[in-house]
Amino acid sequence: MARFLKDRTPSKGMVPGSLVLIGKQKMEKPIVQFKRIEKDGLREVEVSNIREAIDQFNPDAVNWINIYGIHDIDLIQSLGTEFELPSLLLEDMLNTDQQPKYDNGETYDAFIMKMLHQVEKSNRIYAEQVTIILRTDCVITVQERKGDVFEPVRERIRKNKGRIRSHGNDYLAYALMDTIVDNYMFLIENIGSKVEELEERLFQEMDTHIVEEIYQYKMELNYLRKSIRPVRDFLVVLNKAEDSYIQERNQQFLNDLHDLTVQCSDAIELYNSLVSDQLNIYNSNMSNKMNEVMKTLTIFASIFIPLTFIAGIYGMNFKYMPELEFRYSYFILWGIILFLAGALLVYFKRKKWL
Amino acid sequence: MARFLKDRTPSKGMVPGSLVLIGKQKMEKPIVQFKRIEKDGLREVEVSNIREAIDQFNPDAVNWINIYGIHDIDLIQSLGTEFELPSLLLEDMLNTDQQPKYDNGETYDAFIMKMLHQVEKSNRIYAEQVTIILRTDCVITVQERKGDVFEPVRERIRKNKGRIRSHGNDYLAYALMDTIVDNYMFLIENIGSKVEELEERLFQEMDTHIVEEIYQYKMELNYLRKSIRPVRDFLVVLNKAEDSYIQERNQQFLNDLHDLTVQCSDAIELYNSLVSDQLNIYNSNMSNKMNEVMKTLTIFASIFIPLTFIAGIYGMNFKYMPELEFRYSYFILWGIILFLAGALLVYFKRKKWL
Amino acid sequence: MARFLKDRTPSKGMVPGSLVLIGKQKMEKPIVQFKRIEKDGLREVEVSNIREAIDQFNPDAVNWINIYGIHDIDLIQSLGTEFELPSLLLEDMLNTDQQPKYDNGETYDAFIMKMLHQVEKSNRIYAEQVTIILRTDCVITVQERKGDVFEPVRERIRKNKGRIRSHGNDYLAYALMDTIVDNYMFLIENIGSKVEELEERLFQEMDTHIVEEIYQYKMELNYLRKSIRPVRDFLVVLNKAEDSYIQERNQQFLNDLHDLTVQCSDAIELYNSLVSDQLNIYNSNMSNKMNEVMKTLTIFASIFIPLTFIAGIYGMNFKYMPELEFRYSYFILWGIILFLAGALLVYFKRKKWL
Amino acid sequence: MARFLKDRTPSKGMVPGSLVLIGKQKMEKPIVQFKRIEKDGLREVEVSNIREAIDQFNPDAVNWINIYGIHDIDLIQSLGTEFELPSLLLEDMLNTDQQPKYDNGETYDAFIMKMLHQVEKSNRIYAEQVTIILRTDCVITVQERKGDVFEPVRERIRKNKGRIRSHGNDYLAYALMDTIVDNYMFLIENIGSKVEELEERLFQEMDTHIVEEIYQYKMELNYLRKSIRPVRDFLVVLNKAEDSYIQERNQQFLNDLHDLTVQCSDAIELYNSLVSDQLNIYNSNMSNKMNEVMKTLTIFASIFIPLTFIAGIYGMNFKYMPELEFRYSYFILWGIILFLAGALLVYFKRKKWL
Amino acid sequence: MARFLKDRTPSKGMVPGSLVLIGKQKMEKPIVQFKRIEKDGLREVEVSNIREAIDQFNPDAVNWINIYGIHDIDLIQSLGTEFELPSLLLEDMLNTDQQPKYDNGETYDAFIMKMLHQVEKSNRIYAEQVTIILRTDCVITVQERKGDVFEPVRERIRKNKGRIRSHGNDYLAYALMDTIVDNYMFLIENIGSKVEELEERLFQEMDTHIVEEIYQYKMELNYLRKSIRPVRDFLVVLNKAEDSYIQERNQQFLNDLHDLTVQCSDAIELYNSLVSDQLNIYNSNMSNKMNEVMKTLTIFASIFIPLTFIAGIYGMNFKYMPELEFRYSYFILWGIILFLAGALLVYFKRKKWL
Repeated sequence: MARFLKDRTPSKGMVPGSLVLIGKQKMEKPIVQFKRIEKDGLREVEVSNIREAIDQFNPDAVNWINIYGIHDIDLIQSLGTEFELPSLLLEDMLNTDQQPKYDNGETYDAFIMKMLHQVEKSNRIYAEQVTIILRTDCVITVQERKGDVFEPVRERIRKNKGRIRSHGNDYLAYALMDTIVDNYMFLIENIGSKVEELEERLFQEMDTHIVEEIYQYKMELNYLRKSIRPVRDFLVVLNKAEDSYIQERNQQFLNDLHDLTVQCSDAIELYNSLVSDQLNIYNSNMSNKMNEVMKTLTIFASIFIPLTFIAGIYGMNFKYMPELEFRYSYFILWGIILFLAGALLVYFKRKKWL
Repeated sequence: MARFLKDRTPSKGMVPGSLVLIGKQKMEKPIVQFKRIEKDGLREVEVSNIREAIDQFNPDAVNWINIYGIHDIDLIQSLGTEFELPSLLLEDMLNTDQQPKYDNGETYDAFIMKMLHQVEKSNRIYAEQVTIILRTDCVITVQERKGDVFEPVRERIRKNKGRIRSHGNDYLAYALMDTIVDNYMFLIENIGSKVEELEERLFQEMDTHIVEEIYQYKMELNYLRKSIRPVRDFLVVLNKAEDSYIQERNQQFLNDLHDLTVQCSDAIELYNSLVSDQLNIYNSNMSNKMNEVMKTLTIFASIFIPLTFIAGIYGMNFKYMPELEFRYSYFILWGIILFLAGALLVYFKRKKWL
Repeated sequence: MARFLKDRTPSKGMVPGSLVLIGKQKMEKPIVQFKRIEKDGLREVEVSNIREAIDQFNPDAVNWINIYGIHDIDLIQSLGTEFELPSLLLEDMLNTDQQPKYDNGETYDAFIMKMLHQVEKSNRIYAEQVTIILRTDCVITVQERKGDVFEPVRERIRKNKGRIRSHGNDYLAYALMDTIVDNYMFLIENIGSKVEELEERLFQEMDTHIVEEIYQYKMELNYLRKSIRPVRDFLVVLNKAEDSYIQERNQQFLNDLHDLTVQCSDAIELYNSLVSDQLNIYNSNMSNKMNEVMKTLTIFASIFIPLTFIAGIYGMNFKYMPELEFRYSYFILWGIILFLAGALLVYFKRKKWL
Repeated sequence: MARFLKDRTPSKGMVPGSLVLIGKQKMEKPIVQFKRIEKDGLREVEVSNIREAIDQFNPDAVNWINIYGIHDIDLIQSLGTEFELPSLLLEDMLNTDQQPKYDNGETYDAFIMKMLHQVEKSNRIYAEQVTIILRTDCVITVQERKGDVFEPVRERIRKNKGRIRSHGNDYLAYALMDTIVDNYMFLIENIGSKVEELEERLFQEMDTHIVEEIYQYKMELNYLRKSIRPVRDFLVVLNKAEDSYIQERNQQFLNDLHDLTVQCSDAIELYNSLVSDQLNIYNSNMSNKMNEVMKTLTIFASIFIPLTFIAGIYGMNFKYMPELEFRYSYFILWGIILFLAGALLVYFKRKKWL
Repeated sequence: MARFLKDRTPSKGMVPGSLVLIGKQKMEKPIVQFKRIEKDGLREVEVSNIREAIDQFNPDAVNWINIYGIHDIDLIQSLGTEFELPSLLLEDMLNTDQQPKYDNGETYDAFIMKMLHQVEKSNRIYAEQVTIILRTDCVITVQERKGDVFEPVRERIRKNKGRIRSHGNDYLAYALMDTIVDNYMFLIENIGSKVEELEERLFQEMDTHIVEEIYQYKMELNYLRKSIRPVRDFLVVLNKAEDSYIQERNQQFLNDLHDLTVQCSDAIELYNSLVSDQLNIYNSNMSNKMNEVMKTLTIFASIFIPLTFIAGIYGMNFKYMPELEFRYSYFILWGIILFLAGALLVYFKRKKWL
């Protein structure tokens, strides 16, 4: 039901920095994976705790700790302890309502972002929170559940395509963010193409389905904007930050990523205004149709109601009604009726109602 | 009645800095409490005046003076005298219409904020003013009446949870503000979930209740915005202020608090635009319904009014109406009637009104 | 009639800096008053010209020259000559259409502001222009006519309340501005309380009066905004100006005044959006009512028009109509009629029109 | 027809800086006038080319070259050659679609502005382009045709009123701009007073004329905004420019001019929002009226259609209709009819439709 | 169908900087042209690869490589290799959905822009992407297909008109951009003149065509804005950039180009608001018409339905109806009927419905 904000009751009255899961638990047992990406090979292991992963770090390689599931408070706590992460950051990681944000810590850069996926049947978009922590010695990602969004990145690493093996931990962090943002563009394009298709039905069909669709697109665009705008904004800050852990040589990629988020935002605003225009146009069309209906009614009623009255007059049973006796009355009356009907038709024609 | 601005008549024509209560008196007799939070224990006393509290200050502990009730001008005046607070600040404390503001004084930081609570039955939100004054030696809070909003903080102090005992007066001030802002988020979420529920009824029900609800949510969102936006804005100033009484080590908490107010503001705007969209959609639906009603009327009337006219014609009592005598007239007439009705039905079908 | 801009014809084609009265003459003969506020007493005299006032200046006291009536060009000209005021400033003083502005001259600070008052019956707000000129040796105020807006300030001086006697000429200038701005807040609150009351009638009454009221509130809010916004804006400039004639120790009062104008502006925007929402809600309600009316018509017409047709059929006078002869026809017809009416009622019930 | 943008076909595919007239030729033969304004007299001559004027320059006087007609490309070209003006500036002078702009050249300041005049009958405003070039030795003005807009300035020079004779070339340039902007204010005031008058008719008349008027005012305000806003914006730049040819002593006049353009812009926005509100109010009124019409119809139809049905029933000719024979049937029927009509009236009264 | 965003499936999951064509292939085989513009002549050759062109560079001449067709990845790749262009830039060149952007590289300036053309019949505007790369030794342009948009520039070069031969590579780049932007202005003017024409039909015709047109203009203005705004924005950056490859002496042309894009943007916003106003006016007119229709219906129905009822009464066949026997009943009834009709007419007249 409530997609835009989640139930915060668990955190009510807690000390700032308390670790509480806000949102639903999405998998049974958390999983911790460790990948060591060296120049000449890749080592992937499932480990049982953070320490175990740290022990296998290779300072010359790219080290990636990948955690699925955030309901295990102890695990998150141990993450904080091992890497000296402040409790406010850990709290944010567990609060799936947290807006995307960039935290420029003393020994790390942390990025909280939303991974979006669309449920096919209902067209609804849902968000999952991803935290990416970049340190000089490793990258840590924390997701709500096991998913396949980073699969393309893993694939590239396995096949030794791309620059991850050679460009360091910060490039890996960038590549992960890029994958998330790239996905935004696909979702926007998906909604956008439906919005553009709606255009053609707008002047044909006149039913509530169109209104429902318009409303739905507005909702989804709002939802997208909520997830994307803060990313666009923090990338500006990141690009200017002098003490970030993104190295100089990877700066161009961040610029490119920022351009992409700007393009996302612009596309959202564009489609939003298209959809608003469509609703306005729909309403104008509706008025047009209504007008046509009313004209039809008015013409029929205005012609036949007076005529019926005339017929009613001569259906009266008064004893003394001179016209009734007259031989040509009936024919004269038809003449009057036809003349009246004709006159009214001409009148409506002049008013351009016909 | 007037919730957004209160009656200012009492202050009319007064010297700036005059102490006048704007708003209603909300309790009988003011209460002054004093709490000394030391590393190894907490001392709570009700004191009869400010001086008595000051005498019990422990420079190494967190000292908290808590005043309920602002209608006792003398008490507020003595507060000003004891701590050398400027009269303009005291005036603001008594003006419950005062917008939230941050005053960076020479010996203190003062925060005027609104504590919000929702009346269950009417869904209406009401504000009470809280002033938090932070000095190097103590924290002073002034509330309109005895309430339980700071209860969680007191609870934490009593149970020695959280960092208040160890982080100093400025952390206490932060914790109090955090409690207030946290509550905003709950209220927004509460309205938000109702707004999202409305979505489902929007295409089902068509009555004024929905319009009334929409209007009410708009009002409450406006009310929330009025209380929250200035807080968001002064936190930016506070975060940059070099001479504030918030110490370096507690800066991160303020940043976090600012993030929360930003999220509040964004959520308010989001729900505001959702509600506006819902009203638009409701109106479009309304037009659709109206159109349907009008079509029904038009079809019924356009078919039966002409037919009634025909029947009326042959109900006339003219002496000489040749058709009346003809044996098959009646049946031919039925034929004509059915043909006309059918033709009109086909016509309306083609117009897609059926 | 034209309240928002006044007729500028008199100034057409004039040299910039020409002294022409734009607006109406509001009193017969201008009055020049002089007040010398000394530590131990107040001297008030009506003087016949500016020179006479200057001769009585006491460099250690607060000297206040108060001019009512701006249609006497010679008087204004002599003011300019005596105090070396530039002709552009004098022109602005006479142009009652002049927006509020702050002029930071070499020997003076000039503030042009609008004094607002509300005509009770029509609720309309009208503005009068006040110019306050602050010099190191005196304060000069120029008003369109004798009025009582500064009465509270005079009262305070007489009773020796407030700080005017001790805080210098600049404090007097501030106190006058504060009186003007304070009055804005009262007017806003006045309109605001009416707007909030309207809320309750919005779902009850459905007539043009509500629309008229809404329109009027919009107008008055526009009028208020026009007078207040420039004041808010110039106070920012003044607060930052290093060469203003407001002394350091009175700076805090200016800050407070600026806060008040910000609050005024925010309240205006708030009520403006409330009123706009009310109009939208009114329109939605209107559609709801219309829909109800149309349904009533449609139900009545759709049931009785077909039935009337049936009755009409058997009111025809054809010689050969077999049903007429049959003994139970009439009763069968009643059956058919009731069945049809019932069927249509069920149909409308299903459509939720009943 | 197309007032907002003109046909640019002539410039299609031309080199930037090509001299092509965009817009219509508005007079037969261009005129070049030269005025030398000396302390003790004014010399006015019509000259045949630019050179002739330059030869008569007096370095101690104000020299003003005034060109009417911009269709003579050679003339404009010679202007460029004599004063070393860049071809891009000459191109802009000939492009009457050019937005107002300020060009801070090496030996000149150029101001392109729009002179507006209103055609009385249609209320439409039309623009003519004026270029004012200020150099240390002279002022050059280029207009589309001979007009009287600068007449007041010329008058003042002739009568030796104003400061032009003594304040130099830059003051002349300012005085010309001031004349143009002053005229804007008159036009705005003109439209404004009509907008304010409309207010009173808004609740009386209900016809399309009001909608047409509203639309027209919106158009004209748009047109004014298009001409005025860029002037307001470039005056900010000019006031800050350190290398402009406006001398220090005339700076205050520019500030005043900027204030006037700000006031113009604010007034345009104000009237624009008044007009938009009026359209909204008109629409609400329209709905109110429609509702009233529909209620009237519904009441008449809902009362008389059922009654007509009842009358129809007893107009049927069935052989066996027991009621017809009964002596008091007719009077009972009238009772039923009156009761039904009364009941429906009470029903509509309760619904507040009456 | 989807004009605003294109199908991005081909790039799904690719490494950033991968060369994939997004959009449709618009020609069979790519073409590479090379032009060497020397002071005394122009050499044009079609070459088969980039190398071949580079070999013919003359360092003292303007060298222009012109590529049509972007589906040949190898060609684009070789372009990247020869000129050491970063892969992110090449990716952008192939992504025809790329927003216009300016890339300030180490050895080049790259401009991605949209060339727009309007399909006559449907009025729709379509975009093609053009990349202009400026280096100290050459200009490279990459287009989606062979087109004639740069024809005027080529023509000028051939005829030795304009400054291209003498002003260097950067002037050529500017001239190309100017040609593109100039074309925007033509398209805006084209739509604008249609919008202004619509104004006259707005109060005459009342059909859905006008709504359809309004919608279409809104779409096209949106489409134009999407292509133009980023150009306007990057020109600001370019004008301030200190390390761009545009030389000092050509700076004025860039300023002029920026002015033109500002004018484009302003015109788009202007027409957008005109079109929105037109839709509002159309809707108000629609309501007016509807009101008129309803009044006609109400007057006819309210007059004749009661009269028909009266006639129906005396058409009843009750045995005992005293009025029927009375000799003057019929004439009295006509009197009543005429009186009733007259009374209702007066009533409607008073309500101003007639």
